[in-house]
Amino acid sequence: MHTDPDYSAAYVVLETDVEDGLKGYGITFTLGRGTEVVVCAVNALAPHVLNKDLGDIVGDFRGFYRQLTSDGQLRWIGPEKGVVHLATAAVLNAVWDLWAKQEGKPLWKLLVDMDPQTLVSCIDFRYITDVLTEEEACEEQMLAHGYPAYTTSCAWLGYPDATLKQLCSEALKDGWTRFKVKVGADLQDDIRRCRLIRNMIGPEKTLMMDANQRWDVPEAVEWMTKLAEFKPLWIEEPTSPDDILGHAAISKALAPLGIGVATGEQCHNRVIFKQLLQAKALKFLQIDSCRLGSVNENLSVLLMAKKFDIPVCPHAGGVGLCELVQHLIIFDFISVSASLQDRMCEYVDHLHEHFKYPVLIREASYMPPKDAGYSTEMKEDSVKRHRYPDGEVWKKLLTAQGN
Amino acid sequence: MHTDPDYSAAYVVLETDVEDGLKGYGITFTLGRGTEVVVCAVNALAPHVLNKDLGDIVGDFRGFYRQLTSDGQLRWIGPEKGVVHLATAAVLNAVWDLWAKQEGKPLWKLLVDMDPQTLVSCIDFRYITDVLTEEEACEEQMLAHGYPAYTTSCAWLGYPDATLKQLCSEALKDGWTRFKVKVGADLQDDIRRCRLIRNMIGPEKTLMMDANQRWDVPEAVEWMTKLAEFKPLWIEEPTSPDDILGHAAISKALAPLGIGVATGEQCHNRVIFKQLLQAKALKFLQIDSCRLGSVNENLSVLLMAKKFDIPVCPHAGGVGLCELVQHLIIFDFISVSASLQDRMCEYVDHLHEHFKYPVLIREASYMPPKDAGYSTEMKEDSVKRHRYPDGEVWKKLLTAQGN
Repeated sequence: MHTDPDYSAAYVVLETDVEDGLKGYGITFTLGRGTEVVVCAVNALAPHVLNKDLGDIVGDFRGFYRQLTSDGQLRWIGPEKGVVHLATAAVLNAVWDLWAKQEGKPLWKLLVDMDPQTLVSCIDFRYITDVLTEEEACEEQMLAHGYPAYTTSCAWLGYPDATLKQLCSEALKDGWTRFKVKVGADLQDDIRRCRLIRNMIGPEKTLMMDANQRWDVPEAVEWMTKLAEFKPLWIEEPTSPDDILGHAAISKALAPLGIGVATGEQCHNRVIFKQLLQAKALKFLQIDSCRLGSVNENLSVLLMAKKFDIPVCPHAGGVGLCELVQHLIIFDFISVSASLQDRMCEYVDHLHEHFKYPVLIREASYMPPKDAGYSTEMKEDSVKRHRYPDGEVWKKLLTAQGN
Repeated sequence: MHTDPDYSAAYVVLETDVEDGLKGYGITFTLGRGTEVVVCAVNALAPHVLNKDLGDIVGDFRGFYRQLTSDGQLRWIGPEKGVVHLATAAVLNAVWDLWAKQEGKPLWKLLVDMDPQTLVSCIDFRYITDVLTEEEACEEQMLAHGYPAYTTSCAWLGYPDATLKQLCSEALKDGWTRFKVKVGADLQDDIRRCRLIRNMIGPEKTLMMDANQRWDVPEAVEWMTKLAEFKPLWIEEPTSPDDILGHAAISKALAPLGIGVATGEQCHNRVIFKQLLQAKALKFLQIDSCRLGSVNENLSVLLMAKKFDIPVCPHAGGVGLCELVQHLIIFDFISVSASLQDRMCEYVDHLHEHFKYPVLIREASYMPPKDAGYSTEMKEDSVKRHRYPDGEVWKKLLTAQGN
């Protein structure tokens, strides 16, 4: 569906007037064109943040969240979805990074150390009280190892056998035990690649499949029935991210085949996640650190998933998604789910070199980050070189294109 | 929810190189801040339209629609929702206006005269084939009076008794028989205004209520139970526009009270409407001409509503929404629903003076427009005076604000 991604990000830097020159960094991941639209929306949200006191913001974080997402005029062009919500995520990610740095803790530790009342006060419960109220959220029990990861790097669409074999054997050597294959473009090619990978990893290791929204509902069921012999744990994004009832129908049809439905990377807010849980539409819930309204809204989804006993297996990859979401999933494990059963976090070995505090993977596990903040900060030189359109990298590209 | 709307629009003008200098005009309605974000998205979509031949575009309208909504990079910041989808609506509204002008017909007549195959070829069926296929859509039967309208102008929140009485008696004198009241901010004030209006209009005329998304699910049921004595036909937008299962729960709870649920003005695409129909979540479906992907996507919703036997009662008001949507609802009556049972189109007497072909209301009915096009074109002088930030009106405002 995304045929020519040019990995990009809208990058927000919040500057403060404190003596140590503390700054908060926030990003939201994009695919190239359209980043300027998100940046335009960030600028439209800016008046809500400029000249505010961090203490006032986090002191009434729910109120501040509501202010950003319910701006009387900007709300119309959402609400809480698409461009404005991505911009909200970028701005709030910067606020959370700043707060965690001010407290001198990595974000996950800031969350783990918070008392339940403060934690819950960051969440906007509007539109989800039929499933989770503030009082219930407070009652949820609050538990260190690495967090299990899986790799998506080795089985993209159209890879020839030789490439697949090489990437797969390298991943096995590095200790990976969970693998994800992209499917949905061509059934015969899917069968070829799934057979090869299942043969290489053997029957015990875990295989997942990802269709990136390519199918309509009946097509998804038919196609996956034909791939069932390769024993996938899940089929990810079988259809439109807006189709809750469609995901429920697919879940019901595939359950007898032992295949669960996973989705969430393009679910645009907590109301969609609420319904996916109510409708029994998924078996694996995939939050995204940059599409939902930052930590605040992800907290509400982690708590609803706990209530419905559905494991959270975050979406990552992109630009900085691994860096950010590791904080959320480690918090989920320590304070919310207290379980690794059926849980793992996506990992793609890509673009980490641009981040000041890159993820650390050991034995196919995310190791808890120790630096203060949300790991959102990029290296100054990377930002300078890759900034559109005046960074060195872009200048060269644009000159080469004759612009 | 939208406390300080400053009625605005992103306005797209498609110029052509034909000798008669034909132009297509497209708008999408906005509330002030954020319009610049939509304009930015229109510019991001522009390369798909510039230097294209109108014949090529409408010759493969489904393909062109898909091209706009599935741009490999821009899709990420939607998909098919929020800012990019509003921008898509503005661009495609201009294409439809241009096409209708080229054919020398008002848009509704262009649609009514189309053979079913051509009509259906404008629709993208992706993600809705589990409810409506191309073949089925072709089989739908394809009937001239004015189309019934209702008024929202006389019962906004917080109006004092004297204002309500005056507006209501004027509307009755003008022949209006259907009235809508805004509710949801203060129950006692709602009871006061509803009682006054029901007393003035009597038991036979129709009263509707509109909560503009203010409630959570349990709150909506509780509040409307207390307003049931005033016999509303519907409650509009009781909760989040994303909450299909929530609307279904509210519909089920309010059915014994004789109150139907109406929603749609902020439903972001056909996949959401499909599920509202599947889940029996609404009794009145309210399309919007500027939020869905123009005529193309509205056609798919009209056909699905027909299949589920749910009346379409469009959202209007805003900037130009009455001008545009009258074409769709007249087409719906003549070619799709062939019924006026429980059907009516919202009307607000506001801003029509800026349009070159303003709506014509007689005896509380929309009279079919006769000028070629989609009635989207604004008066040149209005555009010039109200353009942000360099129009005369804005210059005065900004000077007064000291900017």
